Amino acid sequence: MKNTPKIPRYEQFAHVLEELIRSGTFPMGSRLPSIRETIAQHGVSFSTVLQAYRRLEDQGFIEARPQSGYYVKLRPARAAVEPEFTPLPSDPTSVSIDEVTSRLIHDTLNLDFAQFGAALPDPALLPTAKLNRILAQLAREGKFSQVTGEAIAGQEDLRIQIAQRAFGYDCYLNPGELVVTAGCTEAMSLCLQAVCSPGDLVAIESPTYFGIILALEALHLRALEIPSHPRTGMSLDALKFAVDNHPVKAVMAIPNFGNPTGSLMTDADKRDLVEFLAHKGIPLIENDINGELYFSDRRPRPAKSFDREGTVLLCSSYSKDISAWFRIGWVAPGRFSREVQSKKYAMSVRTSLLAQVAIARFLEGGGYDTHLRKIRNAYSQKASFMAQAICNHFPAGTRVIEPAGGFVMWVQLPGKLDSLELYREAQKAFITIAPGYIFSPTHKFNDFVRLNTACWSDRAEQDLIRLGKVIANLLRRK
Amino acid sequence: MKNTPKIPRYEQFAHVLEELIRSGTFPMGSRLPSIRETIAQHGVSFSTVLQAYRRLEDQGFIEARPQSGYYVKLRPARAAVEPEFTPLPSDPTSVSIDEVTSRLIHDTLNLDFAQFGAALPDPALLPTAKLNRILAQLAREGKFSQVTGEAIAGQEDLRIQIAQRAFGYDCYLNPGELVVTAGCTEAMSLCLQAVCSPGDLVAIESPTYFGIILALEALHLRALEIPSHPRTGMSLDALKFAVDNHPVKAVMAIPNFGNPTGSLMTDADKRDLVEFLAHKGIPLIENDINGELYFSDRRPRPAKSFDREGTVLLCSSYSKDISAWFRIGWVAPGRFSREVQSKKYAMSVRTSLLAQVAIARFLEGGGYDTHLRKIRNAYSQKASFMAQAICNHFPAGTRVIEPAGGFVMWVQLPGKLDSLELYREAQKAFITIAPGYIFSPTHKFNDFVRLNTACWSDRAEQDLIRLGKVIANLLRRK
Repeated sequence: MKNTPKIPRYEQFAHVLEELIRSGTFPMGSRLPSIRETIAQHGVSFSTVLQAYRRLEDQGFIEARPQSGYYVKLRPARAAVEPEFTPLPSDPTSVSIDEVTSRLIHDTLNLDFAQFGAALPDPALLPTAKLNRILAQLAREGKFSQVTGEAIAGQEDLRIQIAQRAFGYDCYLNPGELVVTAGCTEAMSLCLQAVCSPGDLVAIESPTYFGIILALEALHLRALEIPSHPRTGMSLDALKFAVDNHPVKAVMAIPNFGNPTGSLMTDADKRDLVEFLAHKGIPLIENDINGELYFSDRRPRPAKSFDREGTVLLCSSYSKDISAWFRIGWVAPGRFSREVQSKKYAMSVRTSLLAQVAIARFLEGGGYDTHLRKIRNAYSQKASFMAQAICNHFPAGTRVIEPAGGFVMWVQLPGKLDSLELYREAQKAFITIAPGYIFSPTHKFNDFVRLNTACWSDRAEQDLIRLGKVIANLLRRK
Repeated sequence: MKNTPKIPRYEQFAHVLEELIRSGTFPMGSRLPSIRETIAQHGVSFSTVLQAYRRLEDQGFIEARPQSGYYVKLRPARAAVEPEFTPLPSDPTSVSIDEVTSRLIHDTLNLDFAQFGAALPDPALLPTAKLNRILAQLAREGKFSQVTGEAIAGQEDLRIQIAQRAFGYDCYLNPGELVVTAGCTEAMSLCLQAVCSPGDLVAIESPTYFGIILALEALHLRALEIPSHPRTGMSLDALKFAVDNHPVKAVMAIPNFGNPTGSLMTDADKRDLVEFLAHKGIPLIENDINGELYFSDRRPRPAKSFDREGTVLLCSSYSKDISAWFRIGWVAPGRFSREVQSKKYAMSVRTSLLAQVAIARFLEGGGYDTHLRKIRNAYSQKASFMAQAICNHFPAGTRVIEPAGGFVMWVQLPGKLDSLELYREAQKAFITIAPGYIFSPTHKFNDFVRLNTACWSDRAEQDLIRLGKVIANLLRRK
């Protein structure tokens, strides 16, 4: 056991190479390391390498190109490269939310599918041409060559832009308090880590975004579901009762355009929520990722705007309206800024400065408001059209909640249909949806589906009509 | 409490604006929102805004520029924008590692300081010109306009590049198993989450990188310190004893160029470590971030290259040798790939695709080996020069470990000096160091310092001479 490893004979070496080709490490058309490199790197003999390469050539895996080297002939099946997930079992109680969401994300990679599942923005409604110009400009300026230290909290220009914008919706944030994160999900998970310990109880909306449920599970926190109305959000009466009777350590909510419902809390309720929780000494983690995507004439205030004690941790991101590629989010953690920074450093040190600088430049350049006006209009129209199409084409008994903003739509299936069964049947028809099952840790909404409205188009209408037929078929089979 | 908020009178509004200017939300020279915008956004009257702006003008905070608007005159002090940390108390037992490291990172922002503290790479040894060209090229190609779904595990081209490279040092990784992360720290924290639960015991090297200690604390894990030799790494005898007598759930190690020591484990020890742990069913989380920065003639193998059971989770990153701005790391989690992906999704969804595409393009373009040869030479020389300078200029009794790779140097202070006291005294001389205090959860190495060798230069030599004098002074005062 204490010796250096045995030099592999050529069959062994050929087998290793075959595995690397099959796994996609050396994909079709790629050049294998030269015989000389291989000898130097692996300490094998010339004849071992040569014989191994010849064997692979004989087996049809590689070909020699004169003056150039050995190249891979066979492209391994795509399935060998992408991780595979087992099909969903038919008994819904045995499926984890994690398993279903993994599959849902996997579905987004399949461009043959009608994408009603994940809440991805419409690519046509992102300012990509402008971002490309900004990146080219930053590269020309050599902006990416500075390698000085960087604050854990993030780049200062970006934090200033965030604070300036927040002033426009009555949030007075201090740039020194803000922490830039890898998207809104990291913002939320850092907040949970900052204010809770494993085993703690967190009150969440029911239904709520599955990412929140996954974060709670990953951090070993317990969820307490507070009933939430699809129009007006979390029930404050229920929350107050829950807080009086359970050791709630934090509350997690999406007051502006809840996910999956598109609900909107009133300003009065937001104020009440913030003041009640401040009085009880319970932090509120607020997700405002969709706050700018309102369909009315005025940007709704975040609950944070009513925060006088610094007990609201406001999380948001630019992934829905600027670019999902950059993964730039942020949190205004109030009095927990130090704790959030500390968790940020321990978990991932800092956020990609490359992406921060580009987003800061985008915001500084102006035009963000014009852009937002355009996409708000578009998403509002898409939601209306989709709601109408659902009324026209889904079986009687289907119920639709028209969202007040954002780009998801919450639909109740007729006849208490099983959303996981619908998910599987829809997949067969090349349609992916988000089953209601995953929006509650106790699967309370298994007869709902969440549909992404961002993908709405003439083609999507046809896909929706097909989805309506899948639902009708399921209904008939019951 | 249920009413809409009172419209602030002009004094209140002026006060809010003053706070926003003081906090840096509106920095010197920035334009305040126009009176028209302010009325629309905040629902205040024309006279309120006008009077508020006039008051701020009278107080010297802002100035009106004809035809343009109101601009901020006063730049708030830098200290108001950056988070402040309290000075270190003199009793070291009451200081948390988190507190010291926050300060250490903060020091990197102060360009007046000689930077012997954080392990930052030499900016001149990063391929920034090439990265700038690649980014400009990608922007021209419109690469950043695709917004299709993306695998949680990361971009396929990048995963293939990582696997191809790993083949060169005898690690046969499957691209489908790899997960791209936001740097090596996220890779490690995801691994800990994947294989441990709160309260579990993790065996670590002693001394070890402070980031590992912070991650364990943040995740509510307990550390078991295994003595590690500054030349040969973790003592396997001690580890085996520990495993036989404690419920060790995972082992975390840096076999290639340990941090802070620069130690290198032998191949025989790596094999022994992997086989022993596999036999016991204990996962090994291996940090190989410095693996390419060897000073000998051959790249050391990672322990992962001896892994037959998939129980080694190999973590690395491009932050030390390509760019710290991109924050691209990765993990080959073996049989824990599914768990790591699941934690990744729950904590931060995905890694910035922008940065992934750029790094993949860099690796595909060739020249990485040439680049690495260059910087290996440079870092090896810097380490030698610094070791020599310490021998020449530090008081007798100082001990130096010459690292086998990487760019940190572990120095034992003479006379059992307190490294936190040295940290404070060095700061007064505009020098920052990493006190030995933070490299063990029980502060076993408080008479050591870790110095960054990457900053070595003629000027740095002068700073090191000054540091030697600070140490000599402390020694005299004892």
